[in-house]
Amino acid sequence: MTAQAMQVPAPTLEQRMLALGQAAREAGRTLAQATAEARNGALRQAAAAIRRNAATILEANGRDMAAARERALGPAMLDRLLLDAKRIEAMARGLEEIAALPDPIGACIAEWTMPNGLRISRVRVPLGCIGIIYESRPNVTADAGGLCLKSANATILRGGSESFHSSRAIHSCLAWGLRAAGLPEAAIQMVPVTDREAVGHLLAMSGHVDVIVPRGGRSLIERVQKESRIPVLAHLEGNCHVYLHEAADPDMARHIVLNAKMRRTGVCGAAETLLVDRAAAARLLPAVIGDLIAAGCEVRGDAPTQTLDRRVRPASEADWRTEYLDAIIAVRQVEGLEAAIAHIETYGSHHTDSIVTADIAVAERFLREVDSAIVLHNASTQFADGGEFGMGAEIGIATGKLHARGPVGAEQLTSYKYVVHGTGQCRP
Amino acid sequence: MTAQAMQVPAPTLEQRMLALGQAAREAGRTLAQATAEARNGALRQAAAAIRRNAATILEANGRDMAAARERALGPAMLDRLLLDAKRIEAMARGLEEIAALPDPIGACIAEWTMPNGLRISRVRVPLGCIGIIYESRPNVTADAGGLCLKSANATILRGGSESFHSSRAIHSCLAWGLRAAGLPEAAIQMVPVTDREAVGHLLAMSGHVDVIVPRGGRSLIERVQKESRIPVLAHLEGNCHVYLHEAADPDMARHIVLNAKMRRTGVCGAAETLLVDRAAAARLLPAVIGDLIAAGCEVRGDAPTQTLDRRVRPASEADWRTEYLDAIIAVRQVEGLEAAIAHIETYGSHHTDSIVTADIAVAERFLREVDSAIVLHNASTQFADGGEFGMGAEIGIATGKLHARGPVGAEQLTSYKYVVHGTGQCRP
Repeated sequence: MTAQAMQVPAPTLEQRMLALGQAAREAGRTLAQATAEARNGALRQAAAAIRRNAATILEANGRDMAAARERALGPAMLDRLLLDAKRIEAMARGLEEIAALPDPIGACIAEWTMPNGLRISRVRVPLGCIGIIYESRPNVTADAGGLCLKSANATILRGGSESFHSSRAIHSCLAWGLRAAGLPEAAIQMVPVTDREAVGHLLAMSGHVDVIVPRGGRSLIERVQKESRIPVLAHLEGNCHVYLHEAADPDMARHIVLNAKMRRTGVCGAAETLLVDRAAAARLLPAVIGDLIAAGCEVRGDAPTQTLDRRVRPASEADWRTEYLDAIIAVRQVEGLEAAIAHIETYGSHHTDSIVTADIAVAERFLREVDSAIVLHNASTQFADGGEFGMGAEIGIATGKLHARGPVGAEQLTSYKYVVHGTGQCRP
Repeated sequence: MTAQAMQVPAPTLEQRMLALGQAAREAGRTLAQATAEARNGALRQAAAAIRRNAATILEANGRDMAAARERALGPAMLDRLLLDAKRIEAMARGLEEIAALPDPIGACIAEWTMPNGLRISRVRVPLGCIGIIYESRPNVTADAGGLCLKSANATILRGGSESFHSSRAIHSCLAWGLRAAGLPEAAIQMVPVTDREAVGHLLAMSGHVDVIVPRGGRSLIERVQKESRIPVLAHLEGNCHVYLHEAADPDMARHIVLNAKMRRTGVCGAAETLLVDRAAAARLLPAVIGDLIAAGCEVRGDAPTQTLDRRVRPASEADWRTEYLDAIIAVRQVEGLEAAIAHIETYGSHHTDSIVTADIAVAERFLREVDSAIVLHNASTQFADGGEFGMGAEIGIATGKLHARGPVGAEQLTSYKYVVHGTGQCRP
């Protein structure tokens, strides 16, 4: 290299990000025309590479874990970050399951013929390029990259800095799968630096990235929604409710509340607030509260609920708004269906809400009037999950109403185009 | 009124806009639960009110026209602004046609039962509140307000200041229809001031408005996309192409090009660039160019095309990017299908593009690889219209890929929710 060549300034972070975006855009075009076999082959090859390179991935994860311990991250954070043989196998199997899903691309969604003979069809196509911004769960690298590949979208992955080495090792396996299937490696790219400004550049690349999917806590989502010049498919929090109507079967009420709250407290479909008809509170609540407390749940309630069980702690206004993601539940008594719906409208997050009642008419009104992505009758809110809906893997539960609502699987990561077959038609 | 009460400061524009948004949000909730009969009744009553108040509307339009002439607006602008008896009748009939469309709300899009017995259905629901920002076509007030009402969405209309009086008179008829049908008048609101800052406030009301639909020229769309904190359903320009493949039937090529360019030059589906296979240019182009020039079209072409007809003026790089919306066409010769697709990808606006060819395999490749909302084979680009697709009235042609692509009718102004019927299911 000559002295002159060495004087060329290094590209700025913005330039590097733009190059990433251009490469992704181009790879997306190739991917959109690739066969389902090629895309599924890449997913299976990536799964094999993850299994084969388990030791390398564990070593990279060890480095992330050591740095995290040094920085004294909390146990929940460390658990999210940790990989072990079982979790690595789950990632590989997850990719194989995505490969086995029906192909979402090229399907004809609808087809009709106009009186002038034009044959019109709506055909499913990829969105283009998806930017995924996530916190420090290294498995998201495989899950999100895999779902985007399945739906023939290029992806730019930006994981949390804590999981950088783990994600990079996993990303290498995805890249290996793409190469092995003859697909462009740039179809799944990872932001190669941990600088926070890289996110800002990504959110401004509206010419190269078609949609941003943030996965993480409230502050991440809010930052992305505020800064992004690109449409955002956001999974906001899941402040989910169970409403026990006065006609609820008492046994069913007990089972559903306990399951909705305590099966897993850290998932977005976990119930956070329990609403109960005042008229039935004395009959329904004591057993429900007893179950919860016996299972290790802290129960916070309004004044009338506190009188039913002395172990109930006082709930404040803030509790109605809180997604605990923990073994805590807020209980409030309401004056019937309308008050329950009004509470959910005021405090809920339009994610998942359930009514327990034997009264079909009341249930139908709840299902119709509660404005949430998922509404259930006589079932636990913990079913809020793409897999439980038969949709396969998902990238999250969308709480907005535009484009996709509820579980976002491979099909939700697509758009469509109108294909029109004519025989020389001109418009009169 | 006491002196003290009079000291209360007048609300700021921002406060007034927020009040508008809150009222719209609330009205939207009522609308979402109203019957199709009520919504269609309001549309028909509004149509009747428009007919009954034609003189009032014309008088208001006269004021707008006088002000526009004083400001020396151009003839195209004046024509867009002008109302007459025929255009008023067309508005009324348009609302009745929207009322007659199938109801998009409450329909079950899909339904299935999981092995655990959960019955899951995807049900169509309104988006909520739609902000429409448009230029000075007063008929948009009726068309857009009507389509949003049909799809049970509240609307905040913000028309161009030039059409303020006309739009206000039309809006009164819409409000009359809502009242007559027992629906909240706030379901269709009009920004009551012409201040430009009102748009800025509207674009920031993400808590009250769910989607923004801008209708107008490039600068309006770009401003909205740049400023909006709310998702935008944008109709960008229609830089539409007709591609004459070497296997095109010469007669069909002539008819389609002439129709695609000259039927109406001001619509977004009008062709702006003609691509021709170099190998067939001498055979296909002379008649095509002759037709266009005979019809009053200016033809601009690349060097080889200029040699075919001395009347062809030189085209520059800028021509490939231009949506003329006028009797001008740019002609370029290309080295076959791939070069045509590459040209469209580089210069097109992903709106509507057509190929003329007798070769089915070539056509299928064009339809698959051209990444536009509408792709046609052997048909005029002027069919890019919701009505021509059998979808009824539309609010525009979306050129983005998220949520809706192509014609945006009542159905595209909806979202969905998942309704789950259980019998006590808990998640294992």
